[in-house]
Order: sequence, then C-alpha cells, then structure tokens
Amino acid sequence: MSTIDNGVNVQALLDARDVLAGAPEAAQFTWRATSRWENGVHSTVTIQDFFGLGEEQSHNDEHVFDADHPEIFAATDDGITPIEYLLVGLASCLTAGIASVAQNRGIQLRSVESTVEGNHDIRGILGVDSDARNGFNDIKVTFTIDADASRQEIEALVAQSQKRSAVFDAITNPTEVTVEVA
Amino acid sequence: MSTIDNGVNVQALLDARDVLAGAPEAAQFTWRATSRWENGVHSTVTIQDFFGLGEEQSHNDEHVFDADHPEIFAATDDGITPIEYLLVGLASCLTAGIASVAQNRGIQLRSVESTVEGNHDIRGILGVDSDARNGFNDIKVTFTIDADASRQEIEALVAQSQKRSAVFDAITNPTEVTVEVA
Repeated sequence: MSTIDNGVNVQALLDARDVLAGAPEAAQFTWRATSRWENGVHSTVTIQDFFGLGEEQSHNDEHVFDADHPEIFAATDDGITPIEYLLVGLASCLTAGIASVAQNRGIQLRSVESTVEGNHDIRGILGVDSDARNGFNDIKVTFTIDADASRQEIEALVAQSQKRSAVFDAITNPTEVTVEVA
Repeated sequence: MSTIDNGVNVQALLDARDVLAGAPEAAQFTWRATSRWENGVHSTVTIQDFFGLGEEQSHNDEHVFDADHPEIFAATDDGITPIEYLLVGLASCLTAGIASVAQNRGIQLRSVESTVEGNHDIRGILGVDSDARNGFNDIKVTFTIDADASRQEIEALVAQSQKRSAVFDAITNPTEVTVEVA
C-alpha cells in the first residue's frame, strides 16, 4: 500500500484475521510460564512454549526472568519486582500496536519511546491499611513519537493501539485468576 | 520465632509495617519503565529507578527486557510477547508471598514451583470479533510445594499470599491507565 516500512508484516495480520474469522478454535491461545522459588523472595520464571493455531508452539529460545524485591525491603535485589513486570508488558504491547497501526496507515515511524509510571501505595501489601489496595493506584504512560505524521495522526495511532492492546485491557479490566495447589 | 529459614527477613517487613503505619507518605511508591521501539513489533523496556520511602531509589542493576511477537504472527520472535510478561509478574509475586508468609508462620519451604496458563482468544486484538476481549479470558496458576507442613497449612499459605499479592490484585481488579503523547 505504500513504500513505508516499520518492519511489520501487516498483510500477514490481515490474512490471519480473515482465516481466524472462519476458524475461531484456532484463535484460542494459551500462554504459559513456569516458576521456581530460589530463596527469600527471589524466584525465576521461564517462558518458551505456548498453544495456538490448534497446536503446540514454541518461541525460538527459552527466556528466564529473575524477580526479587529491592534492598530497601531487606531483600537481595536479584531482579526487578514482580509488579514492575506489568509495566514491561504494558509499554511493549502499546508500542507494538503503534508500529502495527502506523504500518497499516502508511505512516513511517522514526522513533517511539515511552515512560511508564505506576503509583503504588505499599500499605496495602504490608497490611497497614485495608483501604489501600494491593496493586497499583493508577498508571500513566507517556509516548514520545517521531514520525512522518501530524500530531493529530500520531495521537490517533496511540488511541488505536490502546483500543486493541491485550495488556492495556488486562490491566484496565478484571480477569479471573484461579490459584490451586497441585 | 523459629530456626526455619526461607531467606525472608520478616522482622524487617514487620518493622516497615510499623513505621509506615505512622508515615503514609513514605509508603507511596512509583515504579517506572522506559521503552524504546526497535523495529516491527520488537521493543526493549528498561527498568532501574523507582521512587519510594520519600526519595529516589534504584535497583543495583539496570534490567533490559525484549518483547516481540512469535514467528507465527510473521514477527521476529526476539523476545516473549508483551502479555506473557503479566504471567512472569503473577507467578513471581505469588511465590514471593508464599515464601514470606511461610517464614512468618515458621514453615520451612523446600521447593515452590508453579505453572501459569493464560487463556487468550486472539480474535479480540485482531478485530475479528468485538465480543472477544483483547486480554486474557482467564488465568490458572497451579503450585507444587514441598514444605514441612500439612496440605491444609500449604493451602493456607497460598491463600494468604493471594490476599496480599500486588500483581494478583492488579490483574483481577481494574486499574486506571492514562496514555498520553508528550
């Protein structure tokens, strides 16, 4: 549709949309993680396999992530805190959306950067105040985008990315989580 | 309180609770991430600094995470997908809670492992079906725990961890997210 190139294969996504419209069972994905407690509040989480398009799939590589608490909580700081991983997911999901929508709209991106800030009253998790929630109070994302487009077009890219973002939805709306002991 | 050692300094956490009960402003944390678009749907997200206890804080190291989409979405698979980062946060937060509660209750842990599965109908993000949500349909976490405790005590550890988990709350309840262009 144009000579712009953000590196996103939009045609493949449009083709997938057509195929999955007629094959809803193929659109049912299961993402997986396995975790292992190391010591203290330090754990490692591994991600590689998932299910989708009707069969087992795999990332090319195994990815292992460390989570811990910082030293100000008398912990070993061997990784970022668990709640910070939500900010990683949010920033990257919105960024991927911006690149995809820009490609679809023929807008060449030069740079897309964001800062994400999650406000958190830790009295909730410490059990100090039952009115303080355990999670974030709120999150603010600020994008700085350099592209061959007007400010209005850039704002529309960001808005459309939000509208189709898996992580934005997962954080702004409730999801049922079941926790069991094997 | 006992000779068990899960590596969690519970006394420091109890002391922090007492201090923060009288100093709510010190309990206001801001966790931060910065992201940079690389190409296609591949981005990198960096985490190091945060704010808490009334001043700027920092992890000992800078942590950089790659996010991308898998090759079945015609992407380069240079990292896990953004939504998988939510599973990393959930597994590690619940695990940290189990270790902390076990320490407080005098229960020696030997191993704590989990598998996390997030079901996701990708027709939402592709815009195939407006009834399909963008995020997870639901998430299931299964813990396998070896500890000097009865099954009932182990189930109580997991339940208490859920009750005080920042990430469990952030995923099961809505959080306001504001997205702006600088």
